[in-house]
Amino acid sequence: MERATNRAEAFSDGVFAIAITLLILEIRVPELDGATGSRELTVALVRLWPSLFAFLFSFFVILVMWINHHEFMRWVKGCDYKFLFANGLVLLFVTFVPFPTAVVARYLGTGAARAAVAFYCGTFVCISLAYQVLFQSVARGRRLTHDHIPEETLNRVRRAYRIGPIVYSVSTLVAFWSAWAGLLLCASLWILWTRLCYHPYGNRHD
Amino acid sequence: MERATNRAEAFSDGVFAIAITLLILEIRVPELDGATGSRELTVALVRLWPSLFAFLFSFFVILVMWINHHEFMRWVKGCDYKFLFANGLVLLFVTFVPFPTAVVARYLGTGAARAAVAFYCGTFVCISLAYQVLFQSVARGRRLTHDHIPEETLNRVRRAYRIGPIVYSVSTLVAFWSAWAGLLLCASLWILWTRLCYHPYGNRHD
Amino acid sequence: MERATNRAEAFSDGVFAIAITLLILEIRVPELDGATGSRELTVALVRLWPSLFAFLFSFFVILVMWINHHEFMRWVKGCDYKFLFANGLVLLFVTFVPFPTAVVARYLGTGAARAAVAFYCGTFVCISLAYQVLFQSVARGRRLTHDHIPEETLNRVRRAYRIGPIVYSVSTLVAFWSAWAGLLLCASLWILWTRLCYHPYGNRHD
Amino acid sequence: MERATNRAEAFSDGVFAIAITLLILEIRVPELDGATGSRELTVALVRLWPSLFAFLFSFFVILVMWINHHEFMRWVKGCDYKFLFANGLVLLFVTFVPFPTAVVARYLGTGAARAAVAFYCGTFVCISLAYQVLFQSVARGRRLTHDHIPEETLNRVRRAYRIGPIVYSVSTLVAFWSAWAGLLLCASLWILWTRLCYHPYGNRHD
Repeated sequence: MERATNRAEAFSDGVFAIAITLLILEIRVPELDGATGSRELTVALVRLWPSLFAFLFSFFVILVMWINHHEFMRWVKGCDYKFLFANGLVLLFVTFVPFPTAVVARYLGTGAARAAVAFYCGTFVCISLAYQVLFQSVARGRRLTHDHIPEETLNRVRRAYRIGPIVYSVSTLVAFWSAWAGLLLCASLWILWTRLCYHPYGNRHD
Repeated sequence: MERATNRAEAFSDGVFAIAITLLILEIRVPELDGATGSRELTVALVRLWPSLFAFLFSFFVILVMWINHHEFMRWVKGCDYKFLFANGLVLLFVTFVPFPTAVVARYLGTGAARAAVAFYCGTFVCISLAYQVLFQSVARGRRLTHDHIPEETLNRVRRAYRIGPIVYSVSTLVAFWSAWAGLLLCASLWILWTRLCYHPYGNRHD
Repeated sequence: MERATNRAEAFSDGVFAIAITLLILEIRVPELDGATGSRELTVALVRLWPSLFAFLFSFFVILVMWINHHEFMRWVKGCDYKFLFANGLVLLFVTFVPFPTAVVARYLGTGAARAAVAFYCGTFVCISLAYQVLFQSVARGRRLTHDHIPEETLNRVRRAYRIGPIVYSVSTLVAFWSAWAGLLLCASLWILWTRLCYHPYGNRHD
Repeated sequence: MERATNRAEAFSDGVFAIAITLLILEIRVPELDGATGSRELTVALVRLWPSLFAFLFSFFVILVMWINHHEFMRWVKGCDYKFLFANGLVLLFVTFVPFPTAVVARYLGTGAARAAVAFYCGTFVCISLAYQVLFQSVARGRRLTHDHIPEETLNRVRRAYRIGPIVYSVSTLVAFWSAWAGLLLCASLWILWTRLCYHPYGNRHD
């Protein structure tokens, strides 16, 4: 039997896959003049570390978001307009991620690093709010959740989703004071959130 | 059972997903010289508002078109060449959207804003005509519609689809007089169209 | 039951969808200085006709190739390495199409138009040879064709596929003499080929 | 019945398809001034050989990786977080491939060719290690393998996967001495690896 959410998943998978792959386009090949040799190119590649760091960071973020989306959709038994628009809101911010990533890649290690990272963290405030809207569009009054999901599980995930916007907002404020502290706080949240959030879904599924 | 329209849907989903994700590539990272700080970057990011506006506007348009396509395909019981080419016509204009979007992003707020918005609205005239061709390729003589879709429902959607090209044509003309009025008319249509068009498909489907 | 060719189709659909959507990235927003108005932008957009023409032409080509692939895969009952590599060869040239398209967009209407169009047509020689390899990987000795496909049908398509490389080669040579004649010959083939090639597959399928 | 790995496959297919299609974006249309003719364009296209070579090389690599992934997934009966993250690690390096490809395209045939190729080969060291992690996430203790896969088969593939990082490391070192020798060693591995690795999966599957 074909599930009613098949195309919503296929479209979302497409958007996640493209957003995660477009990140690499932001890393530009260093331009040297013809006379230079392998040593100069090696130095130039090493100097790309802010781009590589931003690429890795955002890749991991989008991967975690996709895994989360993947697990979340297993609870959803059907879709309606409210759900499709809430899902569209999540995708809006997912497709937006390559832009703040490019801003961080360009300005990390310069005098404008703090504004760049604050902009980056601010994007995640929006994403975590969008995920909350998506969760509500499915879980409020158990509109679209499978019946076998226990209420207790929904509540645990609901609590985990509520932490997101708060910590991201704090990390945005912290970034104005120190770019690296803001990024660290962001990253710490993902580790925490992964722990908190994944187990309720149940682990292995064959 | 595998549906005969599976691959047409997968291909369409891919094109929609890529077109909606490519929009972000049009927003360029602002270039400042090394001496500048966080304040200058913040100002430069705020000055990108026409790009951000065009991104949001087009994202929402493509999302609405995808949702519409998604709902529409639920009526379709099979596909033939006529349908595949009509669908290709819709996709042609969907992949085209990032270009007029970039033109609006570049020229909104300049002296050429009216030509930019008229070009943008003109694209939607073509899209709404393509959707009409797609609808006819399926609904004419009920060639490819599922039998359980009532005639009354088809007629309601047919009427809604006919309004599209008219209002978009008007908004294109209005844009030559005022860019913002043209955009507003475009946006108002989507809200109206969503209302008119979605309910006939029926709402929730599990 | 899941078909054995599902993932090969999904991967191919992805590549076709991305290649057809990347075409738009080759159309650059015209750069005017700030003082110009709507008239100058309109003129600049009209001057993009070679880009728009190349976009339309290549979009239609990739669409026809995808529809052909879509129909062709309905005959295929399974996949092995030979098939996957032959399919990869087709996809290689599909992903290549945006590059000769950009060359035509840049040099149509200049003194180098003939070399640009010859390069473009030459790409189609390769594509039509790749389709022949794909066809053979499936049809030779009926390795992977469904049993219900009549031998007569295979033969008709085999003949149609053999015309491709010949006409494309001629159009490549003609392009060295006249760019537009080369393009016209290319286009005429698609119309002819569509006619010849599609009907054998049978038309409607629910 | 829907397989539990469906969405992981769809997401992976998307990433592979996009990474393989983005390669073409690295080949830039040669810029000539308006006065030039077809001869100059032909010469300029021929001079793009390093870009074309890098495009072909990387296309083939990603295709082999995808075919491998495709075959590998047929053994997997379900997915959990460990698997999804290991798969994400593979995809990380797949999306990264266009960047070292662009570096090789830019610097092959210049004095910096050796550093460019060493960087390229170094990427494949990472990819082959990531594939090993993916293999272990599925095969260790037969966590997620279908029961009908014989232990002997797993062992043969395990051995083949262990050769990868060694030969790629050697080719990276060799590249510092000769760019072409490094590339040749890379390519020879794929041929070898394809031979070693594919047959255990079994060949035809309907």
